[in-house]
Amino acid sequence: MAILDRINNPEDIKNLSLKELKDLAQELREYIITTVSNTGGHLASNLGVVELTLAMLSCVTPPKDKVVFDVSHQAYVYKILTGRKEQFKTLRQTGGISGFQKISESPCDAFGSGHAGNAISAAIGLATARDAKGEDDVVVAVVGDGAICNGISLEALNNAAQSTKRLIVVMNDNNMSISKNVGALSKGFGRLMVSPRYTRWRYRFDHHLRWFSNGYHWVTARIKNLLSMGATVQKLGFRYIGPVDGHNIQQLQYAFKAALASNAPVFIQVSTIKGFGYKYAEQNPSAWHGPAPFDIKTGLPKKKSNGEGWSSAFGNAILEAGKKDKRVVATTSGMTEGTGLTKFAETFPKRFFDVGISEEHQMIFAAGMAANGLRPVVAVYSTFFQRAIDCFIHDVALQKLPVVVCLDRAGAVPGDGPTHHGVFDISLVRSIPGIAVMQPRTIAELNQMLSTSLNLPYPAIIRYPRGTEQPAIFDADVAVSTNDQPVAIGKAELLAKYCTAGATTASVAVWSLGNMDTLAKEVCELLRSKGVSSELVNARFVKPLDASLIEKQLANGVNTIITIEDGVALGGFGSEIEAYLGGRARTIRCGWENPFMQHASSLKDLYEREGLTAEKIVARLV
Amino acid sequence: MAILDRINNPEDIKNLSLKELKDLAQELREYIITTVSNTGGHLASNLGVVELTLAMLSCVTPPKDKVVFDVSHQAYVYKILTGRKEQFKTLRQTGGISGFQKISESPCDAFGSGHAGNAISAAIGLATARDAKGEDDVVVAVVGDGAICNGISLEALNNAAQSTKRLIVVMNDNNMSISKNVGALSKGFGRLMVSPRYTRWRYRFDHHLRWFSNGYHWVTARIKNLLSMGATVQKLGFRYIGPVDGHNIQQLQYAFKAALASNAPVFIQVSTIKGFGYKYAEQNPSAWHGPAPFDIKTGLPKKKSNGEGWSSAFGNAILEAGKKDKRVVATTSGMTEGTGLTKFAETFPKRFFDVGISEEHQMIFAAGMAANGLRPVVAVYSTFFQRAIDCFIHDVALQKLPVVVCLDRAGAVPGDGPTHHGVFDISLVRSIPGIAVMQPRTIAELNQMLSTSLNLPYPAIIRYPRGTEQPAIFDADVAVSTNDQPVAIGKAELLAKYCTAGATTASVAVWSLGNMDTLAKEVCELLRSKGVSSELVNARFVKPLDASLIEKQLANGVNTIITIEDGVALGGFGSEIEAYLGGRARTIRCGWENPFMQHASSLKDLYEREGLTAEKIVARLV
Repeated sequence: MAILDRINNPEDIKNLSLKELKDLAQELREYIITTVSNTGGHLASNLGVVELTLAMLSCVTPPKDKVVFDVSHQAYVYKILTGRKEQFKTLRQTGGISGFQKISESPCDAFGSGHAGNAISAAIGLATARDAKGEDDVVVAVVGDGAICNGISLEALNNAAQSTKRLIVVMNDNNMSISKNVGALSKGFGRLMVSPRYTRWRYRFDHHLRWFSNGYHWVTARIKNLLSMGATVQKLGFRYIGPVDGHNIQQLQYAFKAALASNAPVFIQVSTIKGFGYKYAEQNPSAWHGPAPFDIKTGLPKKKSNGEGWSSAFGNAILEAGKKDKRVVATTSGMTEGTGLTKFAETFPKRFFDVGISEEHQMIFAAGMAANGLRPVVAVYSTFFQRAIDCFIHDVALQKLPVVVCLDRAGAVPGDGPTHHGVFDISLVRSIPGIAVMQPRTIAELNQMLSTSLNLPYPAIIRYPRGTEQPAIFDADVAVSTNDQPVAIGKAELLAKYCTAGATTASVAVWSLGNMDTLAKEVCELLRSKGVSSELVNARFVKPLDASLIEKQLANGVNTIITIEDGVALGGFGSEIEAYLGGRARTIRCGWENPFMQHASSLKDLYEREGLTAEKIVARLV
Repeated sequence: MAILDRINNPEDIKNLSLKELKDLAQELREYIITTVSNTGGHLASNLGVVELTLAMLSCVTPPKDKVVFDVSHQAYVYKILTGRKEQFKTLRQTGGISGFQKISESPCDAFGSGHAGNAISAAIGLATARDAKGEDDVVVAVVGDGAICNGISLEALNNAAQSTKRLIVVMNDNNMSISKNVGALSKGFGRLMVSPRYTRWRYRFDHHLRWFSNGYHWVTARIKNLLSMGATVQKLGFRYIGPVDGHNIQQLQYAFKAALASNAPVFIQVSTIKGFGYKYAEQNPSAWHGPAPFDIKTGLPKKKSNGEGWSSAFGNAILEAGKKDKRVVATTSGMTEGTGLTKFAETFPKRFFDVGISEEHQMIFAAGMAANGLRPVVAVYSTFFQRAIDCFIHDVALQKLPVVVCLDRAGAVPGDGPTHHGVFDISLVRSIPGIAVMQPRTIAELNQMLSTSLNLPYPAIIRYPRGTEQPAIFDADVAVSTNDQPVAIGKAELLAKYCTAGATTASVAVWSLGNMDTLAKEVCELLRSKGVSSELVNARFVKPLDASLIEKQLANGVNTIITIEDGVALGGFGSEIEAYLGGRARTIRCGWENPFMQHASSLKDLYEREGLTAEKIVARLV
């Protein structure tokens, strides 16, 4: 790391020769691959922007100048070069640096991100404030070709020229589908015009055919082709530069220098290769988007996960549902693999719709299909579902349309942190009438719930966490046998009683939602050891609540209900129980007290750090 | 109404001659003007689409064919011609027909709306389901030039050609700013090409200059110009027809017939004049967008409203704030007049940003300005704020940026109904940490709250209802004098005590939020008449709650807290109190039990119908 050792801030880059910059690019790649092989994280996208980031930082100087990455999982090089070189080794670890840009982490992070499509809007805001203050720094937004098709990006592009004069939007175009008419339309930019790497294109031709069979890339390609037409972007008030070879530092520098000299907003289209410089990532950038720790040589994960993943379980469940009922269709916003829909997409290509990163369109599109007789499933991460709350209220729930929303990554997401925790979903939908909201404890229950939901005449939400199903835990200690009936709407399941010696009734009921059963069981056991009898309930439903079971418990002497959920503690499932009880019994709501909790190495770390442990919960009772 | 009398459903239109259609257009205009002059409602937009709707219904046949209007406040002609001719007289009245399309109202309303930008997504969904079922009906989305710049519309346009083959998107372009290069780009449509009405253009030239000085129209014009380039729309997979004279029935029929013959999605650009045929509405379409009942001859409102409006009070407050602090900037999503920002916009044109119907961009743009030192205010209707929940969570609150969100029309909005009630806002933000949420009882308090909020180092939300401030009601009956200190964060105001003879302490506390003070006072008086002493609190803050006042009340013998709010009863302000109490006192949460409640002639009707009355509230206690 001969050169990287000398680099501590963006100023140090300014003095490097082109040769040194190229060598530095290589060193950065090695450093990132080594680190991510230890910590896990976003790899392919970061390898794609090494030269882009280097060239940009040789021309602009944070924190005076402001650089906003869209989503910002591709900001690793930027972090390393803006004072976080050593800390980078702690990437995504408890107490370490974040995998995203974060205002509180560095003055060089002018704005944070995690959700796609916010960078251009934020950059326009930063630039507008700069103009108001009469300052002259440069604001750059770096946006991937996926995020630029999001509605917010388009709204922002439409507003840029009205709000500010100086702003650079870099479209990091990493699936290389540059439309052939680019050359004709963007004439006039002379030496900045760089031929796309046709040789490489041909080499990867088969790969691209596969790539394009996917709806997401269809959608992305349309908007990108539009924007890469200089004429279109110029209609929006931008000057257009591109396409620039994103792995040619000198060409990138030319582009940035030209952009810096402009007094109008500039749109630079940069063509990069996702995963560039690490063969496994180049060959399959999707799989290498966010790998777990891996062996650099073999590309294999360092440890195999055990247990079935919730996403893949959902994928199997919807595949089976699709076989039984041809009205079932599936939608995703650019997350086919992430949400487990790959098999469904392959089996039912005409009943599968990847709409690109467009959660709002996805929700209303599903509502439209439901209004005309289909049974659409909206598969989306809980945190991104936040984007479509209005569409769920206004287009789905108000019209009582039978859309099934499947919320993946519901609950804490330790590695990604606060922008990705799926902890608000229940609180956001709890006040909406006429819907069912549920969470399975087991994968068997997920299957039942999906099947049940697809036959409801109104909207349903099923949430489940990131990761894998817990090992079975209710064999030894169960006094009441689990109920193996298909899940009925609004029916909870009494899992077990934990009575002290001689006691037959419980004073405490622990209502556990979904995957919190392990913790709930610990709570019950600890209570028993302290002389308190309790019974453990698998809540299954947030809405409608199992009122009859609650009434039965109250009648049998329960005076306290402890609720445990993988969600925000205020306003979620516990609040629903609390509202139902209306003060007739004490409610102890357990969940995440701080839904904006920072990232951590593991879920276990999060539970410990945030105080979501059996000891702390029991201490609130006694 | 010689012709209209004979028309009962779309089939009846098919047999009319062109002459008869033209006469019918005139009759429809008269009928709409007469009705809206009695009921109030959306006028200018409906007058603009008379010929468009007639021509469309002479070519397509609901309910078999499906017509979705974006926002759908312009669906009056459609309603009249699809079996709701007589009912139209009950427009927006209690028990009458809705001012919007509504699935439950008629099989001819294939999808409902109220929020801009949903029509194309919904239409794609309807068309996709049709394709899946092998049916052959036509799906038409009618979208205004304002709504088409919304991010969802753009996401949908980007997805249309991927999902379906047959779909017609009509852009109802009613500010007439058709780009001059349209002709060149859309060549090939021969006789369908219609010159915009240049004569009329010239006549209205001054008007347009004014029009275009406004940011909203800048933003709209950009996207519209893009889309009206046949080449651009065709890039998205559409065939392009236009521009068509939207008041020429025959040309419109040609366009629809050509579109119906196409096996690809078709984009028809129609040029209409908002308010066409009623001189006052033509001259000032903005003011005639949604008039209250008026005198047809003079154009004057039938009754003058008394009391100062909350929107205009907010407008004055931010104007004053802007004068004191040059960091204060204001944003709106196409609602400059509606949110009361006209004066601010005129006084501080460089500090005012109308971003078009782009609530998400608006929120992130504001966050960007806040991150760079400004004090942005996001003025938005509560119901449209739902669109920007994720941006508020992810971009504003998580980053602790000092953005002030001012929610107009918070609470029930009787005439518009369920798509427009601003009743979810509190429930949507209650779980977000680190923010202040408040509602003023008086306009004086609104001023104080805005001033306080603009000096907070974190985000704040101020909500206030549609309509005017209530008359003062706390002169005679007040035992405790009102507090005239500037509002301190988290401080409630004890307004009055209503003690029975001889009693000095209250067993009930009534916590009223904002404009519910009148009802709260009635509750207190009714309680006293039934022998229950109470005290009345102006809550001011949803977050943070005034915990010290609650503790004091509990210590002094209060055993029940009644909360009254203009919002959803479950999950709102009352739930915040309930959560704080944790069962230590009884909570009776009073608000809207059904947040999807139907429209009504007046707020009073809504209170009665939904049971939000002093009698019903007191009955819950006793």
